[in-house]
Amino acid sequence: MKLYSYFRSSAAYRVRIALNLKGIEAEQEAIHLLQSEPLPAYRAAHNPQGLIPALESDEDGLIPQSLAIIEYLEERFPEPALLPAGLAERAYVRAAALLIACDIHPLANLRVLKYLKRELGQEQAAIDTWYRHWVEDGLGRLEAFVTNGGRSGRFILGDTPMMADCLLVPQLFNARRLECDLSSMPTLVAIDARCQEIEAFRKAHPSVQPDAE
Amino acid sequence: MKLYSYFRSSAAYRVRIALNLKGIEAEQEAIHLLQSEPLPAYRAAHNPQGLIPALESDEDGLIPQSLAIIEYLEERFPEPALLPAGLAERAYVRAAALLIACDIHPLANLRVLKYLKRELGQEQAAIDTWYRHWVEDGLGRLEAFVTNGGRSGRFILGDTPMMADCLLVPQLFNARRLECDLSSMPTLVAIDARCQEIEAFRKAHPSVQPDAE
Repeated sequence: MKLYSYFRSSAAYRVRIALNLKGIEAEQEAIHLLQSEPLPAYRAAHNPQGLIPALESDEDGLIPQSLAIIEYLEERFPEPALLPAGLAERAYVRAAALLIACDIHPLANLRVLKYLKRELGQEQAAIDTWYRHWVEDGLGRLEAFVTNGGRSGRFILGDTPMMADCLLVPQLFNARRLECDLSSMPTLVAIDARCQEIEAFRKAHPSVQPDAE
Repeated sequence: MKLYSYFRSSAAYRVRIALNLKGIEAEQEAIHLLQSEPLPAYRAAHNPQGLIPALESDEDGLIPQSLAIIEYLEERFPEPALLPAGLAERAYVRAAALLIACDIHPLANLRVLKYLKRELGQEQAAIDTWYRHWVEDGLGRLEAFVTNGGRSGRFILGDTPMMADCLLVPQLFNARRLECDLSSMPTLVAIDARCQEIEAFRKAHPSVQPDAE
């Protein structure tokens, strides 16, 4: 299997964690998101959706979208599980993951920040404020969801890292890079710290990827 | 079961279609997104994630996030299926759904358009351009993904409406409201037209909801 990745892509980081948690070896091919040429070439040759990451599966062809990849890995390699058994708990884990994937990350994505700068002529300070606004708003709602749910333990669901933890860690990594205020989300910060103790998460960190700068 | 909904919410529209396709009756409670008071009250009383839609399940409590709800409905009421049997096909349907849910809709969401206007002081013309840019870019990539995939028929996968069609129809409804150019996505437009012939889709249309204006 091959993962089209970029060391700093938050969505690729999610998939690297999931692959590591499941003990799956995948070759990585880096697509450098900050250069203008690679994405159109990558889109034409491999992935018509055009974004990072995508998994080239040995059996099932190209799969784009980080959550589609993680759901695929879960169905093909069920152990260790990244979704729990009960329907209510599965919905809770997916709802936490989707809050990050749909409500936070898309607004803090590189292509969006570029549009704010180039097309809307925004200064860097306004772009940073935009970034922090959506990330802090979303993480605040996730903190409320997790603490109100009464289902968290060492991780978002109980004491085993699941799909939602694979998304939380990259989102907090990015939030810290842009100096977001995480003081009102102590539960998420504590879960993130516990994830950092696990090798599967450490091996997926942007700084240790082959294409890291 | 009760669905917290808003007639014009694209994400609620997705869930209404899925409920109808599965023949599940759910009470609707409208949360009016254009008024300032209902969302904080709704968030405090029901849904800490704070956005629309959320499903109050008789057996499994509150489930926010439209895709988490649809995956839940699929697991609890497997027939008629909104995901196919094969792993590659499931990944394809999810990847199409997630392109809409993660790459298009979040950027065209009401709260984002409001921020562009209020916090960034953008004129309506620039906001409309922003909207069309992300919707046309994303739908263009979805058209390429679907046509290159060789898996579409009358619908996104073969001849049965699935999870991805539940997301496509609301996205095209919104795209037309904002006069996006759909001329380069004939496959998606044709699939949407076939969905409109099905009662489950027609009954979910914003114009026929109890809270429609």
